[in-house]
Amino acid sequence: MAAHPLLDDLRAALGDAAVLTDPDLLAGHERDEADLCDSGTPLVVVRPRDTEEVAAVVRVAARHGVPVVPQGARTGLAGAANAVDGAVVVSTVAMDAVREIDPVSRIAVVQPGVVNAALARAVREHGLWYPPDPGSWESSTIGGNVATNAGGMCCVKYGVTSEYVLGLEVVLASGEVLRTGRRTAKGVAGYDLTRLFVGSEGTLGVITEVTVALRPAPEESLTLVAVFPTVATAGGAVAGIAERGLTPSLLELLDRTHLRAIETYRPMGLRTDAEALLLAAVDTGARAADDLARLAEVCTAAGADEVYAATDATEAAALLQARRLAHPAMERFAAETFPGGNGGLVIDDVAVPRGRLAELLDGVARIAEACRVPIGVVGHAGDGNMHPNIVVDRADPASLARGRRAFDEIMRLGLELGGTCTGEHGVGLLKRDWLAREIGPVGVRVHQAIKAALDPAGLLNPGKVF
Amino acid sequence: MAAHPLLDDLRAALGDAAVLTDPDLLAGHERDEADLCDSGTPLVVVRPRDTEEVAAVVRVAARHGVPVVPQGARTGLAGAANAVDGAVVVSTVAMDAVREIDPVSRIAVVQPGVVNAALARAVREHGLWYPPDPGSWESSTIGGNVATNAGGMCCVKYGVTSEYVLGLEVVLASGEVLRTGRRTAKGVAGYDLTRLFVGSEGTLGVITEVTVALRPAPEESLTLVAVFPTVATAGGAVAGIAERGLTPSLLELLDRTHLRAIETYRPMGLRTDAEALLLAAVDTGARAADDLARLAEVCTAAGADEVYAATDATEAAALLQARRLAHPAMERFAAETFPGGNGGLVIDDVAVPRGRLAELLDGVARIAEACRVPIGVVGHAGDGNMHPNIVVDRADPASLARGRRAFDEIMRLGLELGGTCTGEHGVGLLKRDWLAREIGPVGVRVHQAIKAALDPAGLLNPGKVF
Repeated sequence: MAAHPLLDDLRAALGDAAVLTDPDLLAGHERDEADLCDSGTPLVVVRPRDTEEVAAVVRVAARHGVPVVPQGARTGLAGAANAVDGAVVVSTVAMDAVREIDPVSRIAVVQPGVVNAALARAVREHGLWYPPDPGSWESSTIGGNVATNAGGMCCVKYGVTSEYVLGLEVVLASGEVLRTGRRTAKGVAGYDLTRLFVGSEGTLGVITEVTVALRPAPEESLTLVAVFPTVATAGGAVAGIAERGLTPSLLELLDRTHLRAIETYRPMGLRTDAEALLLAAVDTGARAADDLARLAEVCTAAGADEVYAATDATEAAALLQARRLAHPAMERFAAETFPGGNGGLVIDDVAVPRGRLAELLDGVARIAEACRVPIGVVGHAGDGNMHPNIVVDRADPASLARGRRAFDEIMRLGLELGGTCTGEHGVGLLKRDWLAREIGPVGVRVHQAIKAALDPAGLLNPGKVF
Repeated sequence: MAAHPLLDDLRAALGDAAVLTDPDLLAGHERDEADLCDSGTPLVVVRPRDTEEVAAVVRVAARHGVPVVPQGARTGLAGAANAVDGAVVVSTVAMDAVREIDPVSRIAVVQPGVVNAALARAVREHGLWYPPDPGSWESSTIGGNVATNAGGMCCVKYGVTSEYVLGLEVVLASGEVLRTGRRTAKGVAGYDLTRLFVGSEGTLGVITEVTVALRPAPEESLTLVAVFPTVATAGGAVAGIAERGLTPSLLELLDRTHLRAIETYRPMGLRTDAEALLLAAVDTGARAADDLARLAEVCTAAGADEVYAATDATEAAALLQARRLAHPAMERFAAETFPGGNGGLVIDDVAVPRGRLAELLDGVARIAEACRVPIGVVGHAGDGNMHPNIVVDRADPASLARGRRAFDEIMRLGLELGGTCTGEHGVGLLKRDWLAREIGPVGVRVHQAIKAALDPAGLLNPGKVF
């Protein structure tokens, strides 16, 4: 066993089996799924089973002046879960209990290591629904979803993770246990500490329990596909849909690069000759057919070549599945674009006001040309939240530099259009500079003041966010 | 003109007309609508017109070490806007511009002094809807709504104020101007400072601009009335409605005291022999009639004596109007209950998980008997958020003491049932002790640390919240 006085203290607190120092395992806990981010090798990975054990770990680490990096499933896309050299990685993998599901109050109480899909399935048995559905939902954890305020495809109508978090239990840098929020539908008792911790990427505390709000199981939906001659016309259709007062429950955009990547990854008859495809759904109800007709009308007026409704639930599910494959399909496409499988993706996550989406899409095309990098665009069009995926050759510094430049240009454009540098992936390491530009010097000072108030020694996930 | 070096500085910054020291006017700015709360006489009331003027006021006050108390329309019910002796009251009354309405991005940007109803009407012209509708919506301001995170009747389906605040401009204690949030539908750039300021009751900064999200104008709705033999059976019906997965757009409870008070205040043929009445609405759509039938079924199964649907929109509007009259009607009822019009109301605001509502209502009846005070109950049943209104004789210390005891007993019960001491009115002065009990010593320390980080001299709305 590795020798370090910290390790002895951790073993005393958690038992040997929960304190891991195997080099391969440490290497496997160095980083999340973001490219272009630094990472380090942790000294140790611990797997606490409950809040008291997490508190013990934080107290031990504080005593030794060692940083603490919380990790869920490491599916993040901004490097927020990346380890630093010599850190204690707190893995929530052993804290995966769904503690309570209350169908009358429509809440669930879970440990942070519960996988999103596991929670979704557990509440479904009670006729309930946990809407937030990030792309990683089959593997990412609720703790990670909360720490990054994860989005997903349902957000356009049903909102992001933060809108479902009623209360938290958090281990602070001091090792104290804080409970925030409530179990009630409404509540305004004191500062909204719950929302302060949601999206704070492990820099203010380690989340040990989450109380979430649930909805009744969703209605069936009708699905529409619209094929566009350019991505900008698809963007125009999104603005038109908002302007007409329509509220689709899903409104996703895929460009040709993504359609081809998906079709290669798993052939399913997608229109790979289309420049852009909008995928929309509306919840059923009296107005569903009417809403669908109005969506189709707007798409046609915006320049769609072809508009058709899914004929049945099977076709609709297949279309949704195609959209869900965008990320792995593009990863494979990128890998295969360069010799030796060295291709990689730099994933942007810019969000603009819906009315500016067409300008953003036009601009991304210009940036791809100017920087001489392939950029595929996919994303949550209804939210104005796009993921321009920049394809780079990891083995070629010049390609990486061009990709980095395109990445920065896209964020600059996003801010110019009144947008944000991150719609749902978070700041992590990847966008620290851009956060500072977006929130300005006063915003940075307020962030620093809050961080210093809650983590004066700066041991919680150091280097992230700002 | 009153002489104080501070006043000269304020006049230099704002001009004489915006710096008010008339004693009657000062007296009129001492307090909001909450009973049982201390207040003081401000040294001066200022009416800045823009952000720069607010920043100038805060800097002048800081230089002189004088507290700053922000005020909107003073319709609050927790004393959060009450002045302290010698303070500078910053009235937002002259900052009432709707700066922007963007129908495509579905946002509006407003100054804090805009009245809720004025915003609602302005966006309605664009086919849009600003849902938060506190009881005071015809007079309360968006700044005050944001500072207290105001609720309302639509919350059961459409959420409270915080869910509509995308971004803020805030003057900090330092006089610096902070911009938080965004104009986009989604965004996770940095800590959620927007939500930290929402509901912070003027203790962390003075809100000078608000960017709100809007919805398409709402659908028509169908309205149902259910008459119950006891308030607890009405509470049982609310649990049953949640359990059946129904999502009414309105679900309000009125007890007999309120029905009689309203009928006396404005006769409209309400069933004053009923012990409790539930008022429910569902948005129209394919399932509306079906949903209404299921609501009726649940109410009947829970023991309702009579259940009927509003025959038309006029009847539905009248019922809603009756509910909106509950507060003024109860105030008059209370005033007239004691000689000399000395009767007053102590307004509780407890929220419990929906499944515990019947227990809360039962408990309130027991407390009324034990404390020998009349208590009328009204509130947002669908959210589990009740306003037990305690009738006291302001001229009789014994009556006030009994009322205060009942008030405390109700909050104690609310916390025991897993609830919160304030569902929507806020902490202010009225519930400081109960906030501390609810959030515990660690929670209080975190509140204090954040307050100290943002307002080290403690000059912003001192004495409020904690």
